[in-house]
Amino acid sequence: MKARVTVMLKDGVLDPQGEAIRHALGALGFDGVGGVRQGKVIELDLADGTGEAEVRAMCERLLANTVIESYRVELA
Amino acid sequence: MKARVTVMLKDGVLDPQGEAIRHALGALGFDGVGGVRQGKVIELDLADGTGEAEVRAMCERLLANTVIESYRVELA
Repeated sequence: MKARVTVMLKDGVLDPQGEAIRHALGALGFDGVGGVRQGKVIELDLADGTGEAEVRAMCERLLANTVIESYRVELA
Repeated sequence: MKARVTVMLKDGVLDPQGEAIRHALGALGFDGVGGVRQGKVIELDLADGTGEAEVRAMCERLLANTVIESYRVELA
């Protein structure tokens, strides 16, 4: 089975990477780009039967820094 | 309107970050983790009426290195 974890900086945490992308898009002539946030996506191939609870434990212990990042788990 | 762009390394391109995550999960005692791929997700706040074609142009010109990365656009 597959799981996809999306990790984003929490609202209110400065995102210099996203800000750099926003600036660069403007410089390239793309108008109307308001805000940009960049995060990580991690795709995991897991043994069948792995539960969402175990994936969330992976997030808490390794994949996300929960002080400044939030994460979302999708199983497929 | 919002757009989400997901950028992943193409299949066959080595992903050392993903490999490091796989190794670290194993070291933490999470068994059954087969493969891990890490990519980027970019959330854009766009002016209403921006089309998917314009977001794809942003990907081609800035957000993805299409030699080694593939991208997916979702509009919301």
